[in-house]
Amino acid sequence: MLGQMMKMPLLISSLIDNAAKNHSDTKIVSVETAGGIARRDWGQTALQARKLASALGKMGLAQSARVGTLAWNNYRHLEIYFGASGGGFVCHTINPRLFAEQLVFVVNDAQDQVLFLEETFVPIIAAIQDQLPTLKAIVLMGPRNEAASAQIAELQFYDELVETGDAAYTWPELDEDLASSLCYTSGTTGNPKGVLYSHRSTVLHAFGASLPDSLNISARSVLLPVVPMFHVNAWGVPYAAAMTGASLVMPGPNLDGASLVALIEGEGVTCALGVPTIWQGLLAAAKAEGAKLENLQTTVIGGSACPPAMIETFHKDFNVETIHAWGMTEISPLGTVNQLLAKHADLPEDEKLAVRLSQGRPVFGVDMVIHDEEGAVLPNDGAAQGKLMVRGHWVVDSYFGAEPATALEGGWFDTGDIATLDADSYLTIRDRSKDVIKSGGEWISSVELEGIAIGHDELADAGIIGAFHEKWDERPVLIAVKAEGYDPDEKTILEWFKGRIAAWQIPDKVVFVESLPRNATGKILKNKLRDDWADVLTKGEKKNG
Amino acid sequence: MLGQMMKMPLLISSLIDNAAKNHSDTKIVSVETAGGIARRDWGQTALQARKLASALGKMGLAQSARVGTLAWNNYRHLEIYFGASGGGFVCHTINPRLFAEQLVFVVNDAQDQVLFLEETFVPIIAAIQDQLPTLKAIVLMGPRNEAASAQIAELQFYDELVETGDAAYTWPELDEDLASSLCYTSGTTGNPKGVLYSHRSTVLHAFGASLPDSLNISARSVLLPVVPMFHVNAWGVPYAAAMTGASLVMPGPNLDGASLVALIEGEGVTCALGVPTIWQGLLAAAKAEGAKLENLQTTVIGGSACPPAMIETFHKDFNVETIHAWGMTEISPLGTVNQLLAKHADLPEDEKLAVRLSQGRPVFGVDMVIHDEEGAVLPNDGAAQGKLMVRGHWVVDSYFGAEPATALEGGWFDTGDIATLDADSYLTIRDRSKDVIKSGGEWISSVELEGIAIGHDELADAGIIGAFHEKWDERPVLIAVKAEGYDPDEKTILEWFKGRIAAWQIPDKVVFVESLPRNATGKILKNKLRDDWADVLTKGEKKNG
Repeated sequence: MLGQMMKMPLLISSLIDNAAKNHSDTKIVSVETAGGIARRDWGQTALQARKLASALGKMGLAQSARVGTLAWNNYRHLEIYFGASGGGFVCHTINPRLFAEQLVFVVNDAQDQVLFLEETFVPIIAAIQDQLPTLKAIVLMGPRNEAASAQIAELQFYDELVETGDAAYTWPELDEDLASSLCYTSGTTGNPKGVLYSHRSTVLHAFGASLPDSLNISARSVLLPVVPMFHVNAWGVPYAAAMTGASLVMPGPNLDGASLVALIEGEGVTCALGVPTIWQGLLAAAKAEGAKLENLQTTVIGGSACPPAMIETFHKDFNVETIHAWGMTEISPLGTVNQLLAKHADLPEDEKLAVRLSQGRPVFGVDMVIHDEEGAVLPNDGAAQGKLMVRGHWVVDSYFGAEPATALEGGWFDTGDIATLDADSYLTIRDRSKDVIKSGGEWISSVELEGIAIGHDELADAGIIGAFHEKWDERPVLIAVKAEGYDPDEKTILEWFKGRIAAWQIPDKVVFVESLPRNATGKILKNKLRDDWADVLTKGEKKNG
Repeated sequence: MLGQMMKMPLLISSLIDNAAKNHSDTKIVSVETAGGIARRDWGQTALQARKLASALGKMGLAQSARVGTLAWNNYRHLEIYFGASGGGFVCHTINPRLFAEQLVFVVNDAQDQVLFLEETFVPIIAAIQDQLPTLKAIVLMGPRNEAASAQIAELQFYDELVETGDAAYTWPELDEDLASSLCYTSGTTGNPKGVLYSHRSTVLHAFGASLPDSLNISARSVLLPVVPMFHVNAWGVPYAAAMTGASLVMPGPNLDGASLVALIEGEGVTCALGVPTIWQGLLAAAKAEGAKLENLQTTVIGGSACPPAMIETFHKDFNVETIHAWGMTEISPLGTVNQLLAKHADLPEDEKLAVRLSQGRPVFGVDMVIHDEEGAVLPNDGAAQGKLMVRGHWVVDSYFGAEPATALEGGWFDTGDIATLDADSYLTIRDRSKDVIKSGGEWISSVELEGIAIGHDELADAGIIGAFHEKWDERPVLIAVKAEGYDPDEKTILEWFKGRIAAWQIPDKVVFVESLPRNATGKILKNKLRDDWADVLTKGEKKNG
């Protein structure tokens, strides 16, 4: 017997409709690529999004046509998010930091029919336009611009395109399982793989992300997503903001500390979201200027492990709580968020900090478990390390174009991470599966060793690999970049590890290099390091091959 | 093109699984019907719920069999909520305040196969047992009890029944649209009508209810649902608590002020939910005892309009914020919650209070609009009054057993309320459609007049009806009950209205009676008042007929 409740689809258009109807004059502040600040609100955003959807339809796009963006965080990008998905098309956000050949790959793999781009990226696309045969239209996100027209054939202009749309357009009633948006992973090996989100997964993720124990988003929030909209939909913040009526402050291309401090102070930002390197710049600028960041209540940190000193500085110097979050492109991205429990309320600050350093606890809607190498479930005891497996309403089932469930193993998605879960389900990521060092049957975390190494003032960068070892199979080797003006020797660096980690986990060797190879999103290319240095313990210090 | 995300059903079993896995030792405190406090946790609740589901299956129940409860808020009732729905049966919570003939009606209409009941209600069921032919089992919620067995033939015992269940039982994978639970409305006319919730509507409602701008529920919350679990699933609190890992404190049968103060103080309750009359008792007891209610942060008030003085007393004397909420059985129940916006933060207290008096703003997932009598949409301007129409993920489509969409008009559910919505979408309920007084083409709110009347110290109760009038069609008449020890006259009472409402809205007459007729949930039976007094202005003061 079925329930007798209304069955309405979970659609992205319902998010923007809600924002327009109940939060119409809530502000959307946008730093323009050309400079200056544009001020909009949810009412205007919804109208423009509907006109854009209408215009895309008039352009002849069929349902599920892919619409690419190569863009910063700003109001036009926000309109495209809702206009493309709401209209039944697929919003494909592209990482502009990809190398040209990867850009060509993802646009062709996605079969994008329209590409929206910022002026910033005109030269990049001009150079590869002839390799992008699926594109029917390239649209500059701004008004008419003759200089750009001179570089890209048949360039269209966003502000003109939107005006061809019908203001009376109403959103189509779509299947909630319809594809809504597409992000490619920035893998460190092979070609990027697409993750195709649905309307349902996106709306459920927005619910999960907005909960008090997640990002705690309400109509009183003024959110600064520094995390790019081309990076897993800015962690889903635009959708959660529309669901809850939060205000958005969008930083455009200027992510330096001084610009962010000005925005946070000028616009009364209550919550800023980004990666640790961004916050280092912010903290330095805030201190230099004597800024108080008075309205700022929380910073949400994801993307990589957060240095403890940063959490302390935010807390002590600015009365800002740092919320550690963990996710992946394949998880939309939210998997866990670190909010304290009631029992932590009276802990001394240093013990609270220790809790805050983990990746946090699962958001309702994502189920997680730790598997050993045979697939047996390991206990949530904070000690047992294993493969982190997840499943849930916003977890990938298969990569773009692949057969159903091909991204799963027995109904679970293997995150590729090695982790522990404690009795309260706090997750700690120990390492990537492929980076963990297996030394004599024991596991050593490359992430942990890198964290220690990077804490040494005389090092600028550090990568740890497992190098072949005759007796132990693998032993850790540190590939390090010296800080400018310093010249530490191997012995000094190895001494640094003593007392900071068990003696048997200290690297066997340090190799100094000029720089570490990184991919488009800044992740160290460990496979490249292994190619170069995996034999260093058996064959001595010179690059392999 | 469909998205390529995992598609998992939204099931009530996933809520309790989440609570068991991630919040296992979070406490469930339960006042026992037989006296004393039982202490459980989410881990135990989940285990018992699974065993119960297993036991119900062994009893021979088929999927969607209805399982009735006649019970207080306590841990066994919580186990039945999750065990019955999680196992694929329908949890039918019955209001024990119904008259005997209504109890017979709802059990037979629902075709309940099992009835769980408290010792309190044994005599009631003993008296009507032979009129309940669909029941295969009557189960006392407790251990074996020979006194009860003597009254009800073949009585079973909950604590023994659960032990027949299999601890290794795992939840079935159900269709998320399957019926999960059933509540009957307590209409003031005709037989109660059933609202049949689904797993999907219940889980989506739990998301909506937990959001920061709704009831703001997290793993740090200690919730005291004073609102009964037989009343629209205690406003969905048990489900939201399982979703978020909140602690539950369940008051059993003792809802007097002193008992509630003791629970709130003893168990560190952070949020209590109930109706105004309950809070009157609580405030009186807290003041009498000098209780501070230190952990209590919010009281959520629903069910009827909240007196301004109560909001002020909670705020000034106890530093507790009162959250006004509005809903209906047909809306699962949450429609609106009154949380302030950012722009209200700096208002003086009296202006904040004025905002807090409205019913609040729509929860994401419920869409609402005001219609005039011809069905045209009226503006959200805070002035235009019309029929409040709602639609959404947890709104009724048709009553139990009726054809699809028969509860709707053009896709909307008519709440039967007359209301305004302002530019920020704050809802103010003006009256029930059928109670509003139409005087010379203008509308007068009976609710508003009753609120003024009840504010007079010399009145104990008040009901307003529209009485027939030769010139104006209808004019308001006050049916009033004098407070004990007072003997106000009509002139005194009518003077009281002056300056409190526009002169033309002041009632034409006051009729004093001994008591007002009310239904099982305490609502005034306006139709009975109208039967008795509708002709009082045309035919003079004596009961009609």
